[in-house]
Amino acid sequence: MALVHYPVVNKSGDTIASAVTNLDLHDISRAAKTYGVKRFFVVTPLTDQQVLVDRIIAHWTTGAGGVYNPKRQAALELACLTASLDDAVAHITETERDAPRIVATCARVCNSSIEYAALREKLKTGKPYLLVFGTAWGLSEQVLEEADFILKPVAGRSHYNHLSVRSAASIIMDRLLGIDS
Amino acid sequence: MALVHYPVVNKSGDTIASAVTNLDLHDISRAAKTYGVKRFFVVTPLTDQQVLVDRIIAHWTTGAGGVYNPKRQAALELACLTASLDDAVAHITETERDAPRIVATCARVCNSSIEYAALREKLKTGKPYLLVFGTAWGLSEQVLEEADFILKPVAGRSHYNHLSVRSAASIIMDRLLGIDS
Repeated sequence: MALVHYPVVNKSGDTIASAVTNLDLHDISRAAKTYGVKRFFVVTPLTDQQVLVDRIIAHWTTGAGGVYNPKRQAALELACLTASLDDAVAHITETERDAPRIVATCARVCNSSIEYAALREKLKTGKPYLLVFGTAWGLSEQVLEEADFILKPVAGRSHYNHLSVRSAASIIMDRLLGIDS
Repeated sequence: MALVHYPVVNKSGDTIASAVTNLDLHDISRAAKTYGVKRFFVVTPLTDQQVLVDRIIAHWTTGAGGVYNPKRQAALELACLTASLDDAVAHITETERDAPRIVATCARVCNSSIEYAALREKLKTGKPYLLVFGTAWGLSEQVLEEADFILKPVAGRSHYNHLSVRSAASIIMDRLLGIDS
């Protein structure tokens, strides 16, 4: 999985780099650990944000946080800071000896989106997949265009589709990797 | 739905009142709005925490937040502060003219837990149900004992069961009320 802070769009549709949210790292790491995700990439090119991410991860993996709460340590150990999505792809390609298929997520309906059941089947093949989430108002068009697949948006019972990225990532992992749903 | 800050347990199993987390209100309101939940009760008996919850809700419903982001306003309008779970039950009983069945959630496996499919069917009857989530280390034994049902824990692909309450609430709403999962 990857949580992207650049390139994403703001409320007006401009491409921006968003700020890192501490609870995104916690919530998404914990869900990733629950669902057996191998690695959680936190993507930001901003140096000051990289320092922050490094500090948060270090506190919970090698610092005092890990001693206080080993369950949180086990989750945050999945987190890996990269400067770009390409760096995350390179990391997976090296570790898995195979380039990952990139699955972008998007709250808007796209023509060619892949269904949950279809992606669930693909994941069973054991080939590497990288599931990509955007912060702020979502992934930039460029990331969506370059992805191998765009996952169908999460549908609830209303036309309201403004879940937090923490909620969306949790629900999507459950739909793709959950048991007994 | 209700998010309970008292009575819940801490790491050692003692019954405590937990502090309110701003992002819990946002994430769970947004998910509740997505899944057509009628009301999101934020339960705390602590006066200073009630002031905080009131301020957060007011900022996003009648204050500047709602003007800045009407989508967030639509979500936070579901939030309703109560001093106890009993008060939430009384509120529903008055509004729905029928006492709700109480469904407690718990990360531990219980003998008599209800399955998602079974609860999904019950929800279709249109009778009022109150889905209850605990903060901190979860709902106290007393709440679990007094509930009509205890929902089966969310199962991932590992033995790790330490989702945030924001993630668990989102996933459970999707399992019970989601479409196309």
